[in-house]
Order: sequence, then C-alpha cells, then structure tokens
Amino acid sequence: MIEPRVLKGFRDFLPPQASMRRAITRKLEKVFTGFGFQPIDTPVLEYREVLLGKGGGETDKQVYAFTDQGGREVAMRFDLTVPFARFMAAHQHEVHLPFRRYHIEKVWRGENTQKGRYREFVQCDFDIVGADNASADLEILLMMHSAFAALGVDGVSFRINHRGIFNLFLRHQGMESSSVEILRLVDKLGKAGPEWVEEQLSLLVGSEKGARVLEFIVPADTSAASLENMIRLSGGPSEESERFAAVIDGLEKLGLAERFRIDPSITRGLDYYTGIVYETFLDQLPEIGSVCSGGRYNNLASLYTKQELPGVGSSIGLDRLVAALEEIGWKDEERRENLVGIFCLSEEFTSWYHKLAMELRKAGLNCEVQLTEQKLGKQFAWAEKQGISFAFICGEEEIRQNKVSVKNLVNRESRNMIDLEDAISFCQTFS
Amino acid sequence: MIEPRVLKGFRDFLPPQASMRRAITRKLEKVFTGFGFQPIDTPVLEYREVLLGKGGGETDKQVYAFTDQGGREVAMRFDLTVPFARFMAAHQHEVHLPFRRYHIEKVWRGENTQKGRYREFVQCDFDIVGADNASADLEILLMMHSAFAALGVDGVSFRINHRGIFNLFLRHQGMESSSVEILRLVDKLGKAGPEWVEEQLSLLVGSEKGARVLEFIVPADTSAASLENMIRLSGGPSEESERFAAVIDGLEKLGLAERFRIDPSITRGLDYYTGIVYETFLDQLPEIGSVCSGGRYNNLASLYTKQELPGVGSSIGLDRLVAALEEIGWKDEERRENLVGIFCLSEEFTSWYHKLAMELRKAGLNCEVQLTEQKLGKQFAWAEKQGISFAFICGEEEIRQNKVSVKNLVNRESRNMIDLEDAISFCQTFS
Repeated sequence: MIEPRVLKGFRDFLPPQASMRRAITRKLEKVFTGFGFQPIDTPVLEYREVLLGKGGGETDKQVYAFTDQGGREVAMRFDLTVPFARFMAAHQHEVHLPFRRYHIEKVWRGENTQKGRYREFVQCDFDIVGADNASADLEILLMMHSAFAALGVDGVSFRINHRGIFNLFLRHQGMESSSVEILRLVDKLGKAGPEWVEEQLSLLVGSEKGARVLEFIVPADTSAASLENMIRLSGGPSEESERFAAVIDGLEKLGLAERFRIDPSITRGLDYYTGIVYETFLDQLPEIGSVCSGGRYNNLASLYTKQELPGVGSSIGLDRLVAALEEIGWKDEERRENLVGIFCLSEEFTSWYHKLAMELRKAGLNCEVQLTEQKLGKQFAWAEKQGISFAFICGEEEIRQNKVSVKNLVNRESRNMIDLEDAISFCQTFS
Repeated sequence: MIEPRVLKGFRDFLPPQASMRRAITRKLEKVFTGFGFQPIDTPVLEYREVLLGKGGGETDKQVYAFTDQGGREVAMRFDLTVPFARFMAAHQHEVHLPFRRYHIEKVWRGENTQKGRYREFVQCDFDIVGADNASADLEILLMMHSAFAALGVDGVSFRINHRGIFNLFLRHQGMESSSVEILRLVDKLGKAGPEWVEEQLSLLVGSEKGARVLEFIVPADTSAASLENMIRLSGGPSEESERFAAVIDGLEKLGLAERFRIDPSITRGLDYYTGIVYETFLDQLPEIGSVCSGGRYNNLASLYTKQELPGVGSSIGLDRLVAALEEIGWKDEERRENLVGIFCLSEEFTSWYHKLAMELRKAGLNCEVQLTEQKLGKQFAWAEKQGISFAFICGEEEIRQNKVSVKNLVNRESRNMIDLEDAISFCQTFS
C-alpha cells in the first residue's frame, strides 16, 4: 500500500475550493475580455536556458530544473513573465501591436513553505505590449479597478508611483551609485517603519541624504501634493513627471482619484520597471500585502530579440487573493441556487429518472440524479449535503400518470402530481 | 541573444487557438455542472512512487521524473486517473459517495512526437465513484452524448461493449490463459482487419477457437442481435449481461439507441476495466480514432487504500478533439460579435475615450481602445484585424457637445453626433 500523500507546498483542491477558484477566474477573464485582452498559453516545461538565461542567479535555486529523457536541460516555469517575453520574441510578427494578453496558469518555485506560500501556485498576468504612453498606463489601472469591482470586493486601494521619477531623484541627489541598496531599504518601509529605514539609510548614504530619501518616499496628504514633492526633489518637471501627471489626471477625470493614491515608497524592487509601478491592497486585510502588482517596463524581451517591446502589465497572485477572499467570507453571488435533485424510489425507474433529468437540464436547470434506491431519509440527507434546492420525488403513480411531484427544500413547499412544465416554472421562480 | 524556441512536442497557443480551447472547455464544463459533476484539482508534481507505484513499467520511460531540490523523487503527472485514485484515497471521508468529479488539465508524456501527438497535452476526465449499477453506467453515456451535443458536433457515434461479458466468453471457451494476447489482437481489428486478426488468433489458440473469437467480436446488424450473440457465446445470461441489457434498454428509452451501438470488439486494452467500455467516433473523421473513451472499473484506488471504490468514467483527449473540430471548421457560435473599438483622434482625449469605454462595458459590450493617435486608415485596418464590429470615431466636436459618432463596420451604417444611450442600442441590435 502506498501512502496517498502530496508533496510539501502542493495541494489538492476539493470541489468547494476548486469551484471558488474557477468562479474567481471566470469573473476576471470576463473583465479582461471586456477590455479586449486575449488569452494565450505557453508550455509548462521549457529549455532551462530560455527560462533562466545563461547565468545563475538567486531564483535559479528555487526552479524545478532537470535533464529530460532526451538529455535536454529543461525547467518548469517559475513565473509567466519570462515565458511571455519568449512568446513575444517568437511570435512578434503573428500578433498585432499593441498586443493585449492575459495568462492565468500555474507556476512552480521550490521556496521554503510557510503560511500562504506554496511551491505550486497560480499567477494571473495581463499586459499591453507595444504602446508606451499614458493611455496604456491608464488602461491597466482601469482594468485592475474593474477586476476587483467585478469580484465584488469592497475597499480596494491602489498605490501608484513612477520608477522613472524615483531614478531621476536618486541621480539629482547624487545617490545613483547606491540605488540598488536604497531601493532594497525603501521596499521595507511598510514592514520595518520609517525610523529603521532612516537609520539604515543614514548608515548607507549619510544622514542628510537619508533624510532626503525619506522626504521623497513618505506620501503627502494628497496625490497632487505628493507629485509636487516628487517633482521638486527630482530637479523639476521632466518627461517622466509629465507622463505620471497625465495618468493621475486621467484617474481623476474617471472619478477614481480616491482609489488610486500616489505612494512614492512603492518601487517594486527589480530593475525591470522603468515607469509607473503599483500595488493593490484590501482595506480589510492590509497585512496580507499586495494582491495585484506591476508596472511599466521598456524592454520585455531583450534576452531573445533586438526588437524593443515596451509594455505595461500587472500580476494577481491568485492564491493570496483567494485566501483573502476566503477570510473575508466571499461568496460567488452568481452561483446557481437552483440545483435540482431527482430521488430514486426504485432502480426499476432508472431510465425514467434520467429522462426527466435531461428535460430539466434542457430547461436550464442543473440536475443531479440519485443513482441508488435508498430510504427517503437518506435521500433528504444527500440532497442537503449536495445543496439541492428542489427534490423531484416520483414513483409508480407519477410515472403511470406521466406527472411529477416536486418539493422546494428551502421553504418546504410541495407540488404533487403536476405537469412537468409547471414543475419547471416552480423551480425557476427561485433562480 | 537566446533563441526563443520551445521544446519538441510542446506548443505556444496564440489568442485564436487559446480562445477556441477555452470556449470548448467552457461548454464541456457547463454540461458537466448540469449533471451535478464538480471540479477538483491535484498537483502537477507528485512523489514518483505515488504516480508510478513501486515497480517500473513501460509507461515509466515516458514520464518526466527527477530528483527535486530537497532530494525527493518526483514526477509530473502523465494522466489524470492516477492522481484521482490518490485523491480519492486521501479524501474519501471528505466527499459524499457517489462522487461525481471532472478534471480538465494538462498532462505530460515524453513520447515520440508525431502528427497530433504532443508531449504536453490536455485531458478531460469525468467519473462517478461509489455507485456500481446501471444508473451510473447510463449517466456517463448520457453525459458524453450531451457533451458532444453542446459542442454542436453533428454525427457522433458511440460504440459500447462490456468487458465482463468478454471475460466470461474467454473463460467459457477455455481461452482464459491467453486472454492478454487475445485482447491485444482484438484491439487491432479496426486497423488490421478481420483476416489478419483471424490468422493471428489461429496461430495463438488454433483455428476453431480463433473463429469463435471472431464470431464474438464482429458486431451484428442491431445491438439486440449483438447482445444475443454475446450471451450465447459466453454461456448464457449472467449478471454481466443483465447489467448490459439494462443500460441498452435505458438508451433505447431515452431515444439514443441509434447513436450508441454495441461493438463487441471494443476492449480498451487495460486490465483496469471490468464492466461497460466505450469509444466515441466522429462520423466525419473516423480516421482520427476515438475522441472520448472509458468504462467501468471495480477498484479505483487499490494502490492506496483498502476501501473498494468502484466507478465508471470517461476521458476526452482535448487536443485530438480540438484538432478534429478545427478540421471540420468548427466555430464558437456563442462568440460575441459585438466587439466595439474606440478610435483615437488625438491623445489629448485619452481620458474621455477610456471613460466612454467604461460606459460601453457597463452596458455589456466588449470594448477595445485605440491607444495611440494614428491616421484613420490605419485605425480602420486595426479594427478589421481585431474583428471589431462598431467603431466609435469621436473628436473635438463630439466631446464638446457630449455626443458620440459610431459606425457599423459590417454594413457601413453610421450614426453621427448621437447620445451615448442611442449609440449603445445601435451596437446591441447586432448582438
């Protein structure tokens, strides 16, 4: 006998969890499609070199990589960004730019597992590639807003910043050479607090410059004031600040200024981003961190092609989002409540029950047939477990007269020996 | 520069293909849900031992197996049946029996690639576990029928058989000891023809017995005559033949006898099946082979648990089905034709365009915004490439007067300087 265990950091999903994840994904896809975004898919396994490049970095240790049966060095994808870059390089002449794509799939990282961290998890990425302007920046933000609205989550805050202005600031203040370390410290503002960050900064660049960084990264009362502060400290208006101002202006005109606030401490670590960057927080659960983050990059696929592909994109960590929604008691409002159950009074009537079920499905009702003859009490218990709202309880008499008897299990109303059409209307009133 | 190539046997899916696969999956899921089937999911990576058992068989060579960072022997799933067996053993007390589940996901096998064979492909499995009767057998067949009906595929033929009766026949005729070899030959009837099979059989069990096998496996003119033949040659009525007769009777009562024909040569190779077995063929493309196959097994999870879990299930090879649907020119009939495009006459109006788009989406229209200012001719070309049906072409005058101008790109009708509500009705008439 082999123990039916799963690997640490990996999970089975039972129907309630699998259904919820499916419902969330469907809602997101509907929003994405509404903005003209299209799905793509890429392989789970790729050449190791394609995913990891020629060097060996920190990420590499976490990647599931191995030699396949044909002696090829392969790896399982650890995100959806690298495969997308490879995809764009390979198919740049088959898609129309600007190209809007989304991709919702599993990725794998052999990280140390801890609460809410898994080795197999789902990312949901969406990007616009081939347009470098305020309209594209604005659209990604609008789509993020629409996505959370579609999920029916109240109280979502988006924090936005512009990495280009941040870089100008560092250059203007003569701190360019320490920019990697500064970014790393700034990234810790939320968790470690301003005192600790200031202390570390002053060790790094001296107290005067450290104070300047803090002055830059702490948000002002309004986005307008924050922007003004950023412009002043980075040496005056620039192309970057004009772009950022145009995006902020667009958000205001769309009535979303309250939801999208400038937070100059958002840097998104990586060198990858060059323009707008953003994170998303649930007001009810600030402690879980950002559930949707991203930004503008100026060269998606430089590893694979000389063609410059600027873009702007965002990624939802679906597992973190699902965990958050579970915690705040999220329910799929569109879940069909009108599941119908057909009781089995005798296995002799099997065909008749299945025929009835087919008629009910034709009328748009989801319908489950009880497959075995059991005591009525047991069948009612089954119906309750399955979340069945209407029970068709039909035996010899119904079948002889070609009628049905049906009971609403929620309010206990019954209709006995009625025509099928009337029974269908009876079930549909509920839906 | 790294070449953006994918591994042999693996594929990228561009939006048209990804959208089509998504549409097919959605339609199948809707049918499954309509029968009360629920989704589950399991990890892509599992312990090697869990997927492959303790021995080493033919399949093993094709499996992507390796040692992970923590020294564990792991493997990527090569089907959805083994993970489901493990899942049922692990969660038997968390689900209600009979348990109806479906699972549509990728699996991996390092097979030799050839036309229509991939190393990464999608399986779509559905099973009822915990009910061993004619009602469950019948339901799986009905759901297969409904699934193909929902896809709108005309001309689907289901061929059914009963492995239990086949086994009785072999025992009754004293050929039990050669059953593995006989099954292997019978399986080749379709491809190699009856003469070749008879020749091989007579080499194996002698000409008399070989002729008896052929007598058994060649279908009669009607299902009733085939069943009679099978009963006679297997030593008279049995529990197995009664079960099979009950399923056939059910199909007749549901008006499906024409679609489901007995074919006693269907054996589904494996030892795994014990009862009803079936394959599915598209009348237009018989050469591609079965697109949906399965049967009844009496013990799903014996590797992992002592609890007997009888079940009946079926599997659609989604890649083969998609290839077939592409070949017969299948179109998603539900595809929304009312995609709306918003032209960009000046980037100055960016916010106004996005606001308009949000209003249109609120009214249920999918809406794509042209992000950059371009010549009108280029924008019309873009609209055509994107499959846009309605173009909103608005500039200074529209914005000043708070009106819109919209053009139906299919019949070239225009409405200029009208209210947004009227424009929405104009677009909706098409959908």
